[in-house]
Amino acid sequence: MHQTLALAAQAVGLSDPNPRVGCLLISAQGELLGQGHTQAAGQAHAEVMALRDAAGRGHDVRGAVAYVSLEPCAHHGRTPPCCDALIAAGVSRVVAALEDPNPLVAGQGLARLRTAGIATEVGLLADEARELNIGFFSRMQRLRPFVRMKAAASLDGRTALLNGRSQWITAEAARQDGHAWRKRAGALLTGIGTVRDDDPRLDVRLVHTEHQPLRVLIDSHLEVANSARLLQPPGQVLIYHGGSAGPVTAQALCDLGVELKSLPDARGKVDLVAMLSDLAQRGINELHIEAGHRLNASLLRAGLVDELLLYVAPKLIGEGAGIASLGPFESLEQALQWRWLDAEMVGNDLRLRLRKLDAVANPSDSSL
Amino acid sequence: MHQTLALAAQAVGLSDPNPRVGCLLISAQGELLGQGHTQAAGQAHAEVMALRDAAGRGHDVRGAVAYVSLEPCAHHGRTPPCCDALIAAGVSRVVAALEDPNPLVAGQGLARLRTAGIATEVGLLADEARELNIGFFSRMQRLRPFVRMKAAASLDGRTALLNGRSQWITAEAARQDGHAWRKRAGALLTGIGTVRDDDPRLDVRLVHTEHQPLRVLIDSHLEVANSARLLQPPGQVLIYHGGSAGPVTAQALCDLGVELKSLPDARGKVDLVAMLSDLAQRGINELHIEAGHRLNASLLRAGLVDELLLYVAPKLIGEGAGIASLGPFESLEQALQWRWLDAEMVGNDLRLRLRKLDAVANPSDSSL
Repeated sequence: MHQTLALAAQAVGLSDPNPRVGCLLISAQGELLGQGHTQAAGQAHAEVMALRDAAGRGHDVRGAVAYVSLEPCAHHGRTPPCCDALIAAGVSRVVAALEDPNPLVAGQGLARLRTAGIATEVGLLADEARELNIGFFSRMQRLRPFVRMKAAASLDGRTALLNGRSQWITAEAARQDGHAWRKRAGALLTGIGTVRDDDPRLDVRLVHTEHQPLRVLIDSHLEVANSARLLQPPGQVLIYHGGSAGPVTAQALCDLGVELKSLPDARGKVDLVAMLSDLAQRGINELHIEAGHRLNASLLRAGLVDELLLYVAPKLIGEGAGIASLGPFESLEQALQWRWLDAEMVGNDLRLRLRKLDAVANPSDSSL
Repeated sequence: MHQTLALAAQAVGLSDPNPRVGCLLISAQGELLGQGHTQAAGQAHAEVMALRDAAGRGHDVRGAVAYVSLEPCAHHGRTPPCCDALIAAGVSRVVAALEDPNPLVAGQGLARLRTAGIATEVGLLADEARELNIGFFSRMQRLRPFVRMKAAASLDGRTALLNGRSQWITAEAARQDGHAWRKRAGALLTGIGTVRDDDPRLDVRLVHTEHQPLRVLIDSHLEVANSARLLQPPGQVLIYHGGSAGPVTAQALCDLGVELKSLPDARGKVDLVAMLSDLAQRGINELHIEAGHRLNASLLRAGLVDELLLYVAPKLIGEGAGIASLGPFESLEQALQWRWLDAEMVGNDLRLRLRKLDAVANPSDSSL
């Protein structure tokens, strides 16, 4: 199953909005017959890729065991159901890491396999398999993306000097690692403040990717300049605003190929909860945020951030911008609590990952 | 030698201002004959303790090998020279991790052993042995203590809420670990701001210790209240001030058994460089600082901090006090750079240790 998960990981940056799935076909004698992983949306899923691979090698898969990192699908989406392909191929047993959280599947794939006389097993390396598709699980179960907030800070929590300079607090290795996390995401999000201060391209360029994630800008009053690097190719751009755009601005942005979406809250700002719901409807599994302390604070305060991805440089900066302009709190009980995931050196910077205490971790969690 | 260093570590919190030294006596057949470590100042050193231990066990140490974590002393201090004791005992070989940096020893101990026909070897686990006595090396070679600055902060670098509350950002395990570092120190230092805000006892109470470190307060204008917990027993208290004390205040503090020392700089504040020199003259090897962002910044800006000991709690606080009120800097090149030593979970908090890039690491460093 470890090998199956490694295959599944090859679908990162490729299969969205579909889950990252790997499939291994092993003969009764333990021989590898075929392998595959989910392709781009509309193309073959892992099981079909593995069956094709076996056929290409001239292997007979009748009686084989199929290892899959997620329950084979049972519905007609853009492709026919994978469980039917496995049944037709005559495999004898299917070992799945997890049930598919998609309500259109949710156990039906395994049930159909069993009805066809195929033995099934579920639960092997379930936690690892869920982590790989944490965004897909979030979208299916919570109807919103898994939200990862990235920041690069000094030891004393400064993300920029007081004069706004932030390039670069962390070193090349951390920035490259950050791009690998961007690549995982269906969409990259920032705010108008960061566009004004840093003019980021917000794309994936320090690691190879098959496609660029959707770039999302929160710009309540549509103040973004047409020249902003975020608006330039490659990739799609979506701007959420508060519905206060003049027709000239709106037209100019549309001319640039930018999609505008008005989602105002009561104060004419972008409704962040509605935005996450909208992004989920667009098939965004993981949302990667690189924003300033104001937008970060709004997202954190609303409890919408599932994971912190924090790169800490071995520097002291003192006065400067912080990660999130929260508080001031009256008591330490009000501080936002997180759960450690890991701490690891990336080059000369320390990478910290933390989860929201009640974040999606297990589909059986009561918080879901 | 690992065992010898473990013995030496037992002298932490006991032997100051003397170095932490361990000694193992091993027979030619590899049998442990005796062991010991430095006792309190004025009492026996490691070598004498090991010889006594061997005698107590009825072992003959003639021809034995002595493993010592530091070169045996060659001078009459409060006790007679250890190398003479080893010569008299008839050991055949002495293996030392390091030469003693004390100019009164500095190779003379080993030389005297060789003159007496005893084989010597130096350099085994030298780095580990130096770390254990990093303060002693600093005092001998730089004539100032090794300065360790401790802070407990949130993920976003806040050490207290805006209303001053800071108890407790980190959890019990981190606080206990912090006391183990306090125990290592010859002196614990804070500033008048912290005394006013937090009224700390600044003693070692969460771990066992044989003695309490000297408590040092920087209080330029002698504003400390007689009721401050820092001034209460047990242990000695030393206040550095800027020479602007009224006679009544000074008398009241003296009545409490507090020592006052005026070390004004040109602006009537305490001269920090002179203070470190004075502390070294008092035999302080490691100075442990737990202060607020203003005093921290003064010490950091002056380049006087050798090590950062940072406990990071998995919390976001937003607005609040920072580690050090440095800057504002104009460019990131001005940020204070550190070198990672280690990162380790202590309970639910992350402990980071970093060294100043040019801090005492190797006595052969050109920076010394």
